[in-house]
Amino acid sequence: MSNNLPQNLKGFRDFLGPEAEIRDFVKAKLAETFRVYGFQPLETPTLEYAELLLGKYGTEADKLLYKFNDRGEREVALRYDQTVPTARVISHYQNELPRFYRRYQLQNVFRADKPQKGRYREFMQCDIDIFNTKSHLADAEILACFYDALSGLGFNDLEIMVNDRTALVESLTPFATEQVDVFSIIQSVDKLDKQTVSEVAAELEAKGLVPERATAALAALDALQPTANLEKIIDAAQKLGVPVAALKFNPALARGLDYYTGMIFEIRSQSYKNGSLAGGGRYDNLISQLGGPDIPAVGGSIGFDRAVDACKDLGLLSASEKPETYLACIYDEETTPAVLELAAKLRAEGKRVEVYPEPAKLGKQLSYADKNGFTHALIIGPEELGKREYVVKDLVAASEERRAL
Amino acid sequence: MSNNLPQNLKGFRDFLGPEAEIRDFVKAKLAETFRVYGFQPLETPTLEYAELLLGKYGTEADKLLYKFNDRGEREVALRYDQTVPTARVISHYQNELPRFYRRYQLQNVFRADKPQKGRYREFMQCDIDIFNTKSHLADAEILACFYDALSGLGFNDLEIMVNDRTALVESLTPFATEQVDVFSIIQSVDKLDKQTVSEVAAELEAKGLVPERATAALAALDALQPTANLEKIIDAAQKLGVPVAALKFNPALARGLDYYTGMIFEIRSQSYKNGSLAGGGRYDNLISQLGGPDIPAVGGSIGFDRAVDACKDLGLLSASEKPETYLACIYDEETTPAVLELAAKLRAEGKRVEVYPEPAKLGKQLSYADKNGFTHALIIGPEELGKREYVVKDLVAASEERRAL
Repeated sequence: MSNNLPQNLKGFRDFLGPEAEIRDFVKAKLAETFRVYGFQPLETPTLEYAELLLGKYGTEADKLLYKFNDRGEREVALRYDQTVPTARVISHYQNELPRFYRRYQLQNVFRADKPQKGRYREFMQCDIDIFNTKSHLADAEILACFYDALSGLGFNDLEIMVNDRTALVESLTPFATEQVDVFSIIQSVDKLDKQTVSEVAAELEAKGLVPERATAALAALDALQPTANLEKIIDAAQKLGVPVAALKFNPALARGLDYYTGMIFEIRSQSYKNGSLAGGGRYDNLISQLGGPDIPAVGGSIGFDRAVDACKDLGLLSASEKPETYLACIYDEETTPAVLELAAKLRAEGKRVEVYPEPAKLGKQLSYADKNGFTHALIIGPEELGKREYVVKDLVAASEERRAL
Repeated sequence: MSNNLPQNLKGFRDFLGPEAEIRDFVKAKLAETFRVYGFQPLETPTLEYAELLLGKYGTEADKLLYKFNDRGEREVALRYDQTVPTARVISHYQNELPRFYRRYQLQNVFRADKPQKGRYREFMQCDIDIFNTKSHLADAEILACFYDALSGLGFNDLEIMVNDRTALVESLTPFATEQVDVFSIIQSVDKLDKQTVSEVAAELEAKGLVPERATAALAALDALQPTANLEKIIDAAQKLGVPVAALKFNPALARGLDYYTGMIFEIRSQSYKNGSLAGGGRYDNLISQLGGPDIPAVGGSIGFDRAVDACKDLGLLSASEKPETYLACIYDEETTPAVLELAAKLRAEGKRVEVYPEPAKLGKQLSYADKNGFTHALIIGPEELGKREYVVKDLVAASEERRAL
């Protein structure tokens, strides 16, 4: 057979049957929980005017935009994230959207980044956000919703770390210098989950803080207590169903992005070691900075590829990965009508049935079933037809039984 | 609030909550049936090397490709259809795919076409296909699967018209002339579902057939009988569950595209007048023409936007359009914990609950519920809390009842 078609572009992926099905399953489960929390789906176009996206994410990001002139010489760009298009939607549909708009969005975004392990040029983002309220209840809803959504996938050792970004900045500002600003200190402090206190102190010194200042900064961090607002968020999240033990105040949690203005969080599974599954926080100034209306917001993202990886890694999807699949074998012309009727009957019960398309030796059909991971084969030969019964071969247990047609 | 963000590009759409939810529902229902028929999901990248897509759909189509040079100066293009990427997948993953690969694909495609009513530049395609067999059973599986998928959405007056494209070409070839080739005759004949016989005859004459020839061509068409293979397909489709009355041989059915090589079909709902919901047929030479391996294939597409429109038009989605939605009202700080716990309890039962994020007058919260289409409001005031009960207001029936917390 020919094979002269070009390969995929680097950083882009095909998802064949089993992998595509796992991804669809994860997506559907997450969306189900989001809807239960009152979030509405939102879909925006893959292409937007480049003007909408340019300058919104910083100079470095602008270089990663897939940008081109379309046939009408409009400068257009591929979706880069879901927040800027949402800011546009909020801005343009103000009269149609609820005052406290809460939306989820699960779409692919595009970044002309250097592809590497776990980093793709097209990948799915999974965001939930609540707009237009500063209430701690909205923060708590985000935490509870993500906790529930991930629990629904089977994660049973989730840990939500929370902090207050503003309190963090305030507590570290006294230790900043002209050379080492507070965000640089925060960047180092953020590594405390992977590095020891002395390693982080050393990094701060290398950046230019005198040792006493570095030590004092880390001590100040250590003395931090949850703000009153963070206490209220934690308390409400617990009432909404997050177990007390799963919620942890972590004064060193910083999150990379500068735009957070209050509560920040990260969610991990303790048995999955390749990073957090979700993160986010409050960003009361971002929507207006992006050109949208001046409204507060709180939300977060699940790392979709990582969540799928973690599910597979921890064996959480066994049922959905391997639903029962039936190959209906074709014996001869006489028995085929009965096989087709049986296929129709089982399909009506929701079972997955593929009809082998051609008459062939039974051994060949069974080896096809085996090779392609079918769990069962259905057989009706002349003898079975005479007795109005069929054989179900369980290909996993290597057993068989006869049932009435 | 500000409103200075650019609008959508023409021909591109935002799907807000209710509309996005209907689309997700239709998509999920269709995919569910496809899986029951043994079809596997496939996802291919939004971007491909332009070389893969160019020249595959004809010169006119090449002009509609969204094509550009990426940052690495590779010539790339946005997905134009799902068949060419599938040909690439079949070509590159031959050892991983089942011999009789059957896949469904529901992704957006992009065409730099002139936008007009019902024609968009980004829209979803919904394809199922079975590869590598010429068996009539595969043709029948496609018909039965689409019938089931559309029935599953609620259409109860479906009509499948079938014909044999090869027999049609053969029967009309004797009437072709140098001036009017057989495909031009077929093009006119295809209009017989909307025009009278004499109108079509007049069109054939206008094209250059002498009146006797035009009349004879239409008479030949009228005399056509289903081929033996088409009889077998119809018979098998009935065994697979398609009602006899829903399957109709239509010798004038032609389908626009030239690549069909055998059975062709179209599916309509008799009560929906804006066109067919699905169509397709056998195309044994196309995959190799597209640069893939030389394998036969049969399949079809559901017109996704049209199917969604028809569902709405015929009121088929009322349940999914309007699931019960609860607004949990916030009365004061004392009662809030009980409200949050109630929200968690109802969510655990799968109910959709939004917690109103801020304390506000009850009237304001109820008018928020009303304005945003909530079906129920949940209220716990101090009195209810004392009695360990809550009020559920049914906002549709304008009634209320008290239940134990």
